[in-house]
Amino acid sequence: MTAHSVFFDHNSTTALKPQVLEAMLPWLTAPTGNPTSRHVFGRNAREALELARKQIAECVGVQASQVIFTAGGTEANNFAIKGIASNLSPGQLLVSAIEHPCVARPAQSLAWQGWQVNQMKVNSDGVIDLAQAEQAFQTRPGLASVMLANNETGAIQPVSTLAALARAHGTLLHSDAVQAFGKIEVDMQALGVHAMTLSSHKIGGPIGVGALIIDKRVDIAPLLHGGGQERGLRSGTENVAGIVGFARAAQLAMQSLSSRSTLVQGLRQQLEAGLHKLGATIFAAKAVRLSNTSFFAIPNIEGETLVTALDKAGFAVASGSACASDSTEPSQVLLAMGVAPDLARGAVRVSLSDSNTSDEITQFVAALQQQVQRLKGLSAVAA
Amino acid sequence: MTAHSVFFDHNSTTALKPQVLEAMLPWLTAPTGNPTSRHVFGRNAREALELARKQIAECVGVQASQVIFTAGGTEANNFAIKGIASNLSPGQLLVSAIEHPCVARPAQSLAWQGWQVNQMKVNSDGVIDLAQAEQAFQTRPGLASVMLANNETGAIQPVSTLAALARAHGTLLHSDAVQAFGKIEVDMQALGVHAMTLSSHKIGGPIGVGALIIDKRVDIAPLLHGGGQERGLRSGTENVAGIVGFARAAQLAMQSLSSRSTLVQGLRQQLEAGLHKLGATIFAAKAVRLSNTSFFAIPNIEGETLVTALDKAGFAVASGSACASDSTEPSQVLLAMGVAPDLARGAVRVSLSDSNTSDEITQFVAALQQQVQRLKGLSAVAA
Ligand SMILES: Cc1ncc(COP(=O)(O)O)c(C=O)c1O
Ligand SMILES: Cc1ncc(COP(=O)(O)O)c(C=O)c1O
Repeated sequence: MTAHSVFFDHNSTTALKPQVLEAMLPWLTAPTGNPTSRHVFGRNAREALELARKQIAECVGVQASQVIFTAGGTEANNFAIKGIASNLSPGQLLVSAIEHPCVARPAQSLAWQGWQVNQMKVNSDGVIDLAQAEQAFQTRPGLASVMLANNETGAIQPVSTLAALARAHGTLLHSDAVQAFGKIEVDMQALGVHAMTLSSHKIGGPIGVGALIIDKRVDIAPLLHGGGQERGLRSGTENVAGIVGFARAAQLAMQSLSSRSTLVQGLRQQLEAGLHKLGATIFAAKAVRLSNTSFFAIPNIEGETLVTALDKAGFAVASGSACASDSTEPSQVLLAMGVAPDLARGAVRVSLSDSNTSDEITQFVAALQQQVQRLKGLSAVAA
Repeated sequence: MTAHSVFFDHNSTTALKPQVLEAMLPWLTAPTGNPTSRHVFGRNAREALELARKQIAECVGVQASQVIFTAGGTEANNFAIKGIASNLSPGQLLVSAIEHPCVARPAQSLAWQGWQVNQMKVNSDGVIDLAQAEQAFQTRPGLASVMLANNETGAIQPVSTLAALARAHGTLLHSDAVQAFGKIEVDMQALGVHAMTLSSHKIGGPIGVGALIIDKRVDIAPLLHGGGQERGLRSGTENVAGIVGFARAAQLAMQSLSSRSTLVQGLRQQLEAGLHKLGATIFAAKAVRLSNTSFFAIPNIEGETLVTALDKAGFAVASGSACASDSTEPSQVLLAMGVAPDLARGAVRVSLSDSNTSDEITQFVAALQQQVQRLKGLSAVAA
């Protein structure tokens, strides 16, 4: 049944690439060892784990020892925020207004421990307001976090500029690079951040695997205590198959980064040309965006309703409220950009990959037009 | 290369069962959705997730809504200890002397937050000393944790008795059932505990998946904040493939529980008869043990040395210090049992499964005898 739908929700998750599964299968079929074990099974597992660590490190320009594997982006973000904060005296914590809940909520949770959480604001294009940020850094926050690319709008943030500001004020800067990684080049050194989060399932790797990349001078406390894996920083038996898959996915993403981006950008241009004709507002349109992401609203049409209608028509897209727990609220990201709540409630996200085609876009625009007409008709009747 | 070694280390990890891989493959090949998404891909993923939750719940006699999926036993234990403690006022925390580091260390970490950590002691058979425990509960600890079966000795603990004690004193009791689950019957109601940890990779499921089963009246704070998955108690995109595999593995483990146990017990009897002839001390021999586990030492032979020698001879076994970070220390479990440090340093663990055979045991005992003779000869020369 899923086979008949077109998948336009790649910022949410991606299908595992066949080459990734191929890399994982030896660890899912043969008897495998616990990487902690000294015997041949354990040593083989450790070897695969350390090779994967080297591969991930190469993808972001760091040393292997800077890579701490986690069970996903959410864990890595929680680890970064709580783990770094817990080794600092409570002070100011500076977090952008458009962070994913798995950065925003760990930050909020620190308020209980005496941290004062301040926000970096964004402009109407969904990009950090550098003038306001410069002021915010004056108070010398202990820790700050700003994502590299936003999951809803795709807007790319001026992280290296913020990292320079952070360093000038003695602030440690973390960046959630989950959406950027595999879509644009991500070089930890060039960004200048102290810690950076990656996730596997956004780039054709398995769900449940991620990494925190850290500057080794940063003092971080573990979130998970136990057997002492990952240099004592993340205990738990290492998910060898998952980590091997993550590394393979990362390598594949690097190989075709720019050609894929060009291809996908072409598809998005085609899409947005169609959207303009339907009177859509495209959010963050003036920002430098991930080339696969288009976040838009059609005035007077509710996003949830459109998503459901498009799903029935065979297209899987997201609304502006992907987060499980507060689904009826309009997107916090759009509100932070100053978008009117009514328009924000109309938000729909299309996130493409190079598996999508121009034909699919053509069909989608036609389906969208049809649904918009139908829904406008319904609201006309209701009025 | 691994194919030529016999795997006798099933308490460390187990090979993924072919039926488990089969259950996982649809989620590793077809385009899959994020269970949070509303479209057909997301709904299918959610359906699989909720079916798996129901299956796991049935295996331990609880309602589906009591199952919170995690990225493994370590996370579930950290979640239980820290998450329950954080919603109580700091007081006494009672933890057995033989807990896995992923219970013992989270407990220690709470000392910083004002908790006083006390120990439940074990007798020389590696079983909780009930008289001492009864005294320890008099001080009305807020939270206690005792494992259902020990990973090193296999000794099964009197958890239901301790749960009655705990309830009589207003204490919340958590039990790490990672090693017990899939080897003996584990019924949450019968045990009477408030929270219980499971892990997938010890029962033929994938690494990196586990669950905390909770009594829903227990107030627990999340360890991972974010998108609000798992009723807000464990954020992070749900590892659908892994969870589906975990549930399949659990079902398979239930189907053949008693026949498998009998088979494996026969193998262990054969093994221990051989060990006795070699003058081995078998730890916790008088305790009711998991039928697959044999933990022993041969006086004057170092465990690590023996493990390495046996690995070369084609047998994968564990020493008494499986934990990554403190590998040269003798087993804390054995020290807690009052075993002399010198003998404890000789500890070797064989943990079987129904994939092992009587021939393998025969060959192992022969190889062990050979290595013991060789190593005794070496030490005689050195003396
Ligand atoms: C920007 C961003 N950060 C973090 C995450 C969480 O990563 P994971 O799903 O691996 O927990 C996501 C996606 O869910 C995301 O879009
Ligand atoms: C008793 C016990 N608890 C917890 C764990 C940790 O589980 P996991 O490896 O899934 O993190 C293990 C095994 O490593 C164990 O033996």
